[in-house]
Amino acid sequence: MTYELYYWDGLQGRGEYVRLALEEAGADYVDVARGDRGTPKMMDYIHGRHGHDMPFAPPFLKDGDLIVSHVANILHYLGPKLGLVPEDEKSRIFAHGLQLTIADFVMEVHDTHHPISTNDYYEDQKPEAKARSAAFLKHRVPKFMRYFNRIIEANPSKSGHAVGDGLSYVDLSLFQLAEGLAYAFPRAMRNFDGDYPRLAKLRDEVRQRPNIEAYLASKRRLAFNESGIFRHYPELDEDPA
Amino acid sequence: MTYELYYWDGLQGRGEYVRLALEEAGADYVDVARGDRGTPKMMDYIHGRHGHDMPFAPPFLKDGDLIVSHVANILHYLGPKLGLVPEDEKSRIFAHGLQLTIADFVMEVHDTHHPISTNDYYEDQKPEAKARSAAFLKHRVPKFMRYFNRIIEANPSKSGHAVGDGLSYVDLSLFQLAEGLAYAFPRAMRNFDGDYPRLAKLRDEVRQRPNIEAYLASKRRLAFNESGIFRHYPELDEDPA
Repeated sequence: MTYELYYWDGLQGRGEYVRLALEEAGADYVDVARGDRGTPKMMDYIHGRHGHDMPFAPPFLKDGDLIVSHVANILHYLGPKLGLVPEDEKSRIFAHGLQLTIADFVMEVHDTHHPISTNDYYEDQKPEAKARSAAFLKHRVPKFMRYFNRIIEANPSKSGHAVGDGLSYVDLSLFQLAEGLAYAFPRAMRNFDGDYPRLAKLRDEVRQRPNIEAYLASKRRLAFNESGIFRHYPELDEDPA
Repeated sequence: MTYELYYWDGLQGRGEYVRLALEEAGADYVDVARGDRGTPKMMDYIHGRHGHDMPFAPPFLKDGDLIVSHVANILHYLGPKLGLVPEDEKSRIFAHGLQLTIADFVMEVHDTHHPISTNDYYEDQKPEAKARSAAFLKHRVPKFMRYFNRIIEANPSKSGHAVGDGLSYVDLSLFQLAEGLAYAFPRAMRNFDGDYPRLAKLRDEVRQRPNIEAYLASKRRLAFNESGIFRHYPELDEDPA
């Protein structure tokens, strides 16, 4: 069965965490909204034309009759099927907790450029975005990145991964966070590799995996851009403290 | 086995969604941080003194050797054990997606009083909080509440619940959202019952369930207050549009 991924066309956004897992596993999937008539097909779900199968927002995954909404829910579902999480319950629950922490961080990244209202443009909330970004770079990035670096360090398997002795979907998502931060805040992230060495090593390892390398070089990988979550607005960037 | 819930003492916060499920089910649990020496015991986990079992933040649940972090992860885990979600996979995944939408909304509620930085006081970001609250009340509350009202309406079982033909943990969380919004924004929520009749009916039904009624009247239920997620700052409230 071909997995159907539904997410906005034109940006990596939250869909990217799912794409990376599907690509790493070499899974059979279609990125529906990037195909012909895909966006109206997606919006039919959002607008409730499939009854109770009405996700609040993309991304969602269709697998046969099953609709799975929210990134962390999708990865929790796909993880065992794609071999991207250890199979025991404790590891699955632990990985899911990490992915939910990643989801919280992603929302904070979004709010650096939209601190007041998602219904208004960034240009209408620039001073507030500058203040929020400054707090984000000073307090939140170190809090989250130190945490993830330490999770890798504390992994009893000493595998260099977040969970268990091999690659998991959590590692792929951490790669995306590291890449996204470097895109959005290149000045502030200047010392990333020194500050978070285990995260940096994991990022490099993920980037070089054959399926990921091929994906990143393909047209399926959209470039970071200013429609996504990670946006490069030079005025929000600053030198490390 | 007694469940151990770890959450900050003195506020409902995110712990409340878990407490409501445990209370409704009459489960055997302790609210660790509200007991003697409980907060240091909780902080040992957060500070990494249990190795890899290091949640990013409370709440987390301990069940034997298992640590489950994040509200939605906890409820996904407890749901079948407490009889608070239908047992089939499709319903469990659907309920989890709804709970993750609730988690996103809770973060938006939090940011109404902390739009710039969680490291600063509300008093240091009042004009921004007013702007964010106005957008929240105008756009986000209707978007989310209409969605949940419609989910109840679209439930094929026509049970008046969000998922399946009986009460689930999602319903308990929706009750908490309705109560919290009424506490924080009493003026703006004046028309809540008329605008979202199915949500209002569900709220009333949950409030009258014997175990919930007993819980709400007990000392275990903390009052809403200005340390929590839902805060009543009259200057952020306003009349319905």
